[in-house]
Amino acid sequence: MPESSSDKDLRRPAGKFGPDGLVAAVAQQHDTGEILMLAWMNREAVRLTLAEGRACYWSRSRQALWRKGETSGQVQHLKELRLDCDGDALLLLVDQQGVACHTGRRSCFYNAWRDGQWAVIAEPQIAPEQLYPGEPRD
Amino acid sequence: MPESSSDKDLRRPAGKFGPDGLVAAVAQQHDTGEILMLAWMNREAVRLTLAEGRACYWSRSRQALWRKGETSGQVQHLKELRLDCDGDALLLLVDQQGVACHTGRRSCFYNAWRDGQWAVIAEPQIAPEQLYPGEPRD
Repeated sequence: MPESSSDKDLRRPAGKFGPDGLVAAVAQQHDTGEILMLAWMNREAVRLTLAEGRACYWSRSRQALWRKGETSGQVQHLKELRLDCDGDALLLLVDQQGVACHTGRRSCFYNAWRDGQWAVIAEPQIAPEQLYPGEPRD
Repeated sequence: MPESSSDKDLRRPAGKFGPDGLVAAVAQQHDTGEILMLAWMNREAVRLTLAEGRACYWSRSRQALWRKGETSGQVQHLKELRLDCDGDALLLLVDQQGVACHTGRRSCFYNAWRDGQWAVIAEPQIAPEQLYPGEPRD
């Protein structure tokens, strides 16, 4: 099957998928600069993210493609996709619907190292049970 | 040898180092929110970063600890260390001296996907030769 030009373009600069076929992907709220989460993408997740304009990751724990928000409704609308100098990390500028974290917090990075221990610095905005009724997690 | 309490604390919530002993670490300029780079840390890199108050990573290509800026002078002063919900990703809020990228650009994420291809959206602020006289890279 012939490749589309976007497949070829993706292969070139984003070609450094790891031995597991994955690259690290950071999601950042496009207007506030808040870091929402870090996840993983394979080539198909990148393709779907660009095609659908919403973040799609690869779940390492479930070994499956994961359209962010398909269970929880907490979709990340893609504003821009960026690639780093080495071609092995992606930055997604997104507009996060609701919260990014499966705990119901806006950001997954809610632990801060303070006075020699980890402190929780953000509270859930939504109860996880509301995000995933009958589901283990997003 | 007895462990210090901070070693124990680090082992607990940041305990999900990958099979290679590494976690992904995102560096963000603390006041502007700019994402500077994504790198990797092992337990010793985390310990040194906290002890010295400056970012220290693990270079996968060189298989060695890498005090960011020790060759280039482009040090990242640590403002805060954060850990994500799964304990397998770190966020470093830093004050970046000069530029983060070995190409001389402020951020490593200078490629943006536009109109079906990657576009370079930032220019070097410093010539790489100035950053690494006689060295391959930082």
